[in-house]
Amino acid sequence: MPKPSTREPLVEHGLELVHRHGFGSSGVAAIAAAAGAPKGSFYNHFASKDAFGVALLDRYFAGVRAALAATVGDASAAPLQRVHAYFALLRDRAREDSHARGCLIGNLSAEVTPSSEAMRAHLAELLDEWTEAIAGAVAEAQAAGTVRATAPAETLAALLLDGWQGALLRAKVERSPAPLDAFRAVLLPSLLQAGPG
Amino acid sequence: MPKPSTREPLVEHGLELVHRHGFGSSGVAAIAAAAGAPKGSFYNHFASKDAFGVALLDRYFAGVRAALAATVGDASAAPLQRVHAYFALLRDRAREDSHARGCLIGNLSAEVTPSSEAMRAHLAELLDEWTEAIAGAVAEAQAAGTVRATAPAETLAALLLDGWQGALLRAKVERSPAPLDAFRAVLLPSLLQAGPG
Repeated sequence: MPKPSTREPLVEHGLELVHRHGFGSSGVAAIAAAAGAPKGSFYNHFASKDAFGVALLDRYFAGVRAALAATVGDASAAPLQRVHAYFALLRDRAREDSHARGCLIGNLSAEVTPSSEAMRAHLAELLDEWTEAIAGAVAEAQAAGTVRATAPAETLAALLLDGWQGALLRAKVERSPAPLDAFRAVLLPSLLQAGPG
Repeated sequence: MPKPSTREPLVEHGLELVHRHGFGSSGVAAIAAAAGAPKGSFYNHFASKDAFGVALLDRYFAGVRAALAATVGDASAAPLQRVHAYFALLRDRAREDSHARGCLIGNLSAEVTPSSEAMRAHLAELLDEWTEAIAGAVAEAQAAGTVRATAPAETLAALLLDGWQGALLRAKVERSPAPLDAFRAVLLPSLLQAGPG
């Protein structure tokens, strides 16, 4: 058994590198060097670079779950307000690095899904869980009559997340929060229209 | 001057490789080998791999322009119908490779914008041109009273393209046309609402 202290820095520094430079541009040697670990230790912890990618997705998604719990999962707020609070939080976080890195889930959906079946299948699971969390609040808002049932809650939640991922791509290209603000001001209320029925 | 016959296969085969495997995973040696060109010839034609990436974006975007001209630019159709026709065409094309590769513009927006200023700046120009083309049809539809002016035509066009890019990411992850169908059935009519005002 390798020491657990080697795995943790590999994931932590690997996440930094892959989030900024992409998966293909982040070589195992560079990841090990950034983590201060011998290159050989990488394959003690991960059967393949794809398996490492799956571990990075899990680490990143723990942060997604925490952000969802703090907003969408806040039972003290009205369901529609919880959805707004979630995207407001994401918008503030994207500003921290001037919109450069975007979302690791979206980035790897774009880059690795044609070539890595392991990462593609794992991304599908994470995307399902993410969509379900938002759909729960949308369904509550529909049941409460504050959001019109123009489509099933799951469809609306998936389109919200997809629209957000696309807005993040444009924010990366323009290095600007404007696409995220347009999402919040126009796309979100267009999909989640006020009122019952 | 290098022979022009070497540059063309590098761009053609490089586009294939980068569209499928990403920019970082497509090495210069592999691109040259796929093109049947000596590795040294790559840097006769391109000052850097980033400059090659810019050339790939231009090649790919020529296809975007052609698809726009055939649909959004079809003066014989009503403006809202032209927008619908454009996304119907893209949806059919995405099916050709089982939604694996997605859009090169979206993929490179995700992967290379934090590390390549040359590609980021070029993507910003292409995204502007793309958005303007759609915005023209949306503005016509608003002027004709078939689409409500809920927001400026440019904002709606940008959100349509962003929503489409996000739906393509989910289609890549799920290897399914369902996200593209949901975009066309729910997101597009939510953003471009029927009627004047």
